[in-house]
Parts: sequence; C-alpha cells; structure tokens
Amino acid sequence: MIYLDHNATSPIEKEVLDAMLPWLGRTYGNPSSGHQLGRSARKAIEEAKDAIAGVLDCSAGSIVFTSGATESINTAICSAFFSGRDHGCNHILTTSVEHSATISTCRFLENMHGAEVTYLPASRTGELDLAEVQRHIRASTCVVSVIWGNNETGVVLPARDIAAICREVGVLLHLDAVQIVGKSPISFDDLGADFLSFSGHKFGAPKGIGGLLIRNSGDFVPLLHGGKQQNGLRAGTENVASIVGLAKALAIRSTDKAQAEILRIKKLRDEFESRLAVRIPDVDVNGQGAIRLPNTSNVYIPGLDSDALVTYLDQRGICVSSGSACLEEAITPSHVVLSMTGSHERASESVRISFGLDNTSEEIEKLINEIVLFRELF
Amino acid sequence: MIYLDHNATSPIEKEVLDAMLPWLGRTYGNPSSGHQLGRSARKAIEEAKDAIAGVLDCSAGSIVFTSGATESINTAICSAFFSGRDHGCNHILTTSVEHSATISTCRFLENMHGAEVTYLPASRTGELDLAEVQRHIRASTCVVSVIWGNNETGVVLPARDIAAICREVGVLLHLDAVQIVGKSPISFDDLGADFLSFSGHKFGAPKGIGGLLIRNSGDFVPLLHGGKQQNGLRAGTENVASIVGLAKALAIRSTDKAQAEILRIKKLRDEFESRLAVRIPDVDVNGQGAIRLPNTSNVYIPGLDSDALVTYLDQRGICVSSGSACLEEAITPSHVVLSMTGSHERASESVRISFGLDNTSEEIEKLINEIVLFRELF
Repeated sequence: MIYLDHNATSPIEKEVLDAMLPWLGRTYGNPSSGHQLGRSARKAIEEAKDAIAGVLDCSAGSIVFTSGATESINTAICSAFFSGRDHGCNHILTTSVEHSATISTCRFLENMHGAEVTYLPASRTGELDLAEVQRHIRASTCVVSVIWGNNETGVVLPARDIAAICREVGVLLHLDAVQIVGKSPISFDDLGADFLSFSGHKFGAPKGIGGLLIRNSGDFVPLLHGGKQQNGLRAGTENVASIVGLAKALAIRSTDKAQAEILRIKKLRDEFESRLAVRIPDVDVNGQGAIRLPNTSNVYIPGLDSDALVTYLDQRGICVSSGSACLEEAITPSHVVLSMTGSHERASESVRISFGLDNTSEEIEKLINEIVLFRELF
Repeated sequence: MIYLDHNATSPIEKEVLDAMLPWLGRTYGNPSSGHQLGRSARKAIEEAKDAIAGVLDCSAGSIVFTSGATESINTAICSAFFSGRDHGCNHILTTSVEHSATISTCRFLENMHGAEVTYLPASRTGELDLAEVQRHIRASTCVVSVIWGNNETGVVLPARDIAAICREVGVLLHLDAVQIVGKSPISFDDLGADFLSFSGHKFGAPKGIGGLLIRNSGDFVPLLHGGKQQNGLRAGTENVASIVGLAKALAIRSTDKAQAEILRIKKLRDEFESRLAVRIPDVDVNGQGAIRLPNTSNVYIPGLDSDALVTYLDQRGICVSSGSACLEEAITPSHVVLSMTGSHERASESVRISFGLDNTSEEIEKLINEIVLFRELF
C-alpha cells in the first residue's frame, strides 16, 4: 500500500507508542488523585507540557490539552465570541477556505447565538488580501480566525502579518495551525496570536488528542465544565497516555533529522508536480505561486473526476484524497478550491496528495503512472 | 501497591489493550477517508457501536462517542438547555449530590445563558424524594439531570422511576451513568431516559473515551461543530483505537464471569464494612440503608481527617480517596457527604474505598489494620 493522505491522518511512530504504553499499562492513575499513582500521572502531564512548551516556544501554562483540533477550534472561537459578546462584540472575521470545524462553529454561533460572521474570499492562489482583513475588522469584531496552513491546498497564510493587524486594533486572533505544527518550526510567543489549535494525529501522535495554546486566559470561557483539571480551562480526566504520545511525537518532529526529512519530502512533492506536468501538460496545481506546506500537492487534472480517481487509485493500493477527510462522506466538491477559483468543475477535478516521512521516489513514479493510465482509460 | 480507588480510574485490561494495538499501529486510517485504510477504520467503529448497542440494549444509532464523561454530560445538558430555551424553557432540575461536571455545567448555564437551576437536596442516606422531583418540575423545565450511581457514596437512585415522572410531563431526562455502566447490566431502551453518559476509564477502557446515548436526536444541539462524523452529532476525527477498546472493555464486563466477579466484590465490600465496624465501632457508612453500587464504600471515621488518612495510607502503599478525584486538587470536604448530612466534620472525615476486579480479602485485612493503626497514632 502507498499512503499519500498524511493531511487526513498519519501513522503513530513506534517511539511514540513505546512512550505511551506504560500509561496504558501499570501506571494508570487518575492525574487528579492524591496518591502515588495519581502523582506520577500528574508528573507525566507536567513533563509533556514542558516538552511541548519548548518546541512551540510558549509557556507551559498556555497549553491546554483537548480531544483534538475540532475541540480546540470550537473552544477558541466560542470563548472569544462569548467573552466578546458580553462587551457588545458579536462579529467574527474568518475566510471561505477554512476547515469545516471553523466554518461549522461560525454557522452555529450565527444560527443560535446572534453572531455576525464575515467569510473573506481567498484569491485564485488561495491567498488573503491583508488590506481586506484590515478593512473588514469592525468595532464589534471579537475574533479573527484563519487557517494558517490549508489542509486541502497547503497554502500558508502570513500568520505574523495577520497577527500584527489584529494586535494593532486589539482584536483576538485564532490560528488553525493543524497542518503547521509538526511540519514547520513555530514560536507562539513570537507570533502574536491569542489562540492556536493543533492536532496530534497529523504528526505521528494518536487520534483523540490535540492542543490549544492560549495567550491570556483572563477572559477565557471553557467549552467543557466540570472538575478543576488543567487550571479549570478544560474539565475532564486528562488522557495521560495520549498526552505523553503527543509530546513525544512533537519532539521527534522538531529534531534536525526530522526537519531534514521534511526538506526531502518537499523535494518529493516538487518532483511529483513537475513530472506529472510533463506527462499531463494541462494539469494545474491549486495554490501554485503561493507559499505552501512542504508536503501538500493539490492538483487539478482537467476532465478527471476526483472521486473516480480516488476510487481507482485505492483499487491500485494508493491512498489519496479528493479533499478534506472531514467532509469526505458528503462527497461534495472541495469548498476550498471552489472558493479560490469559482469553478465547480475545477473543484470536482482536483485531487490532494499529502506526503509523509515514509514516502519514496518510487511511490511517486507509480502514482504518476496510475494517474496517466486512468486518464487514458477514462 | 493496593489500589482501592477504582471509581477514580481503573487499569486497562490486557485484552482491551490487545484489541486496541492494531489501531495504534498499521491500521491507522482516518475513518472519514474514502480509501481502504479509511474504510477499515470506519468498519471498526461500526462494529464497536453494534457491540456496545448489544450490551447497553439500545440502537447503534443512539450511540455518540465522546472524549469522556465530562464531554458527554456537558453535551447532554447544554443540548437540552439550548433546544429548550428556544421554546421558552430555561429551567434545569438536578440534585446537590451530582458530579462536578453536572454542577459546573449548570453553573455555567446560570451565569452565562440565563438558566434557572434547582439543586434538589438528597436525604441523609443520599436518596431523592421522588415527590420533590415531581413538585419541582415546572412548565419551563427543559431537562432533569441526575447521577444514577453516586461516584462518592455509591448510592443508586431509582432511574426508572425518575424517568417515568419525566415521561409523564414530557421533560427530558439525562442520567449520569458513569459509575453504573460496566458495573450493572442496563437497558437504555427499557429505561425511558433521553440521554445517558458514560466513561471508558471507569471500567477497564482507556482515558479519553466515553459515550453519550441519545434517544431522539431530532432537536439535538451538538457541542462540537465541524465535519460530518457521527451523523453530525459530534464532529472531530473519531478516536478509533479507544472506541475499539471501549467496546471490548464493555463486552468483558458484561460476561457472566465478570458479573460473578462483581458479586465477589460486593461481598468484599460488605466484609470490609462489617470488619471495620468491629474494630472501630463508631464508624458509619455514608449511604447506609440505600441501594448502593456493589464496589463502593464511603465511611465516616469520627475524628480522622480524611486527607491525612489518604496521605498515610498512600505512604503504606494503599490508594484510596477522600472524595471525587475530579475535585481532589481543591481539597475541600466532600460536597456530597456535606449535602447528605449537613455536617462539615463528617464531610471532612469520610473516606472512599472503591473496589475493583483485582482486589482480594488479604488487601482488605491490610487496609483495616492500617486504618486502625493510624487512628491509634493520630
């Protein structure tokens, strides 16, 4: 099997599972318990926090563990909205190329809680016009929420510049960094964002664990209420084993060796795009020209229905995607590509290849051959 | 080490971990992905749902997987409140002996969203006066939420009778069944409740996974918004490995062998209480006379500070608790015992022993000896 769908999910690395196993075994205490078994679990969480704080360059106190990026994103946007609404601020500024977690949370706040939401369009290359961001911030804007690295196209938005705009007018910024963390080095302290969401299973940690970085928890409104876990910011017994795994996976991805691997993957991705263009000259890369994630390629192959291609490649043992896994069941054309290009056809004829640490040049060769073969058959 | 804190958390059974490992290994697909790796993950979730539906006697469609009981409880109460508020119903009826997840969610809805909450007091034995339940339901009541099996005292409330009252007046009922599921056989279909929350790590599944049963999802308001996972009832990539573990742990607990083990534990618990009473005649069991969980003993030992006792026993290698682990860090006297007895002294001098499948008569002997010894030293 050739797995080229790492933006959907990634395998757990062996070292990560090894680090988790004791916490799925004999050291099973509840971190809130006062006895030895509880204390050792609590210590493991504190150590994981310190390790993550080192990698993401933030204080350990700003880290909140969640069940994944969807919870992180819901928490950040709802907190900013509900604390803002108390001061008459009910406007959310976001984009039309967000992940469904952001879009659905905004729609929920519109439908149920009187939010006003602006969805800024992206350019044809998936980029944002910063002057438009500035222009659409109102006196009533409580939060700006943008996807830093796009899960479908890989287009990377200028987070630091957006943060500077938000800072200047005193509006909170949430960054969906799900596809950034574990792929690119970041400094949360330096960035100037107020919230940052990430997910473990995108970079070799298990599913069901993620994080939310919070600059200032003063006005924070938790999503989950209950016990005093995580300084009262997120109630519920901590998922100790997965927290340990999350820290380990992030540590692995921040080594020089892993960073070198990411450069290798970028070359592989570029090789794929240039070789595919030789074989199918009318193929076009969505987001071409923009800064993109090193591992993501979203290619428009005119005349080739992407769902049919995904199904064909699957039969040939190759896993790719026609868009976000989180929307897969709906089988709608990609809202991201549609928003960028305005073309339903293009949105239905684009396929996402997302590379991982294990992929090779031979796999790219096979992928290209299969795409060409399918196009001839189709 | 002698572990007697199973109501806080329980070890993962070997068979459960074995069932999980493939999903933490090679079969790592995102269940929303269309390719083979995604499909096998989706199939594992469906099989887990079917198995759980068999044990809890409900339809597979009524099961929603969450990150644990805190999320389940927040989801159920918030959904009932927000859908009810649209029809002018802003009243919640609950009790003063709930877990902090219920109490904190109610307080949040009071403070931020205009809920009116009635906290019914429990009797001296931790029981509810059903006539009072009936009397406090108003035209504006959107949900009744009660803890079926109390996590601190083990007192079991008459869920079926409460459900009958709620049904009669057409008010939703949420049952916090965290300490029931995995300990007692239940039939959700037969019970008449609208929501039922449970948690994996209380019965041999990992931390970070739980469930919410929903009778009718027609007016359901999700807590997490995003992708279309779980029929749109709970967004976020499913925690496949833990879902498989949850189903396995529940299956193990529903075998005749496990049910026989629970009877053995009940005898052990009764043996502990009667033998302790012989050694310390003025000890009193909180909840004595009420129906109680088979594994839970909450004993008032006059003159013995419970936190000091927990610390002493910990030094002797015995893990017990002075109350709910979820409130442990606060080191306040148990609100449950306080509410039942009105006595701060009694709430500060009660200790919770919660037995598990692995405990033995010899361990009880040692526990009693240590309690007696500490009392003589104190």
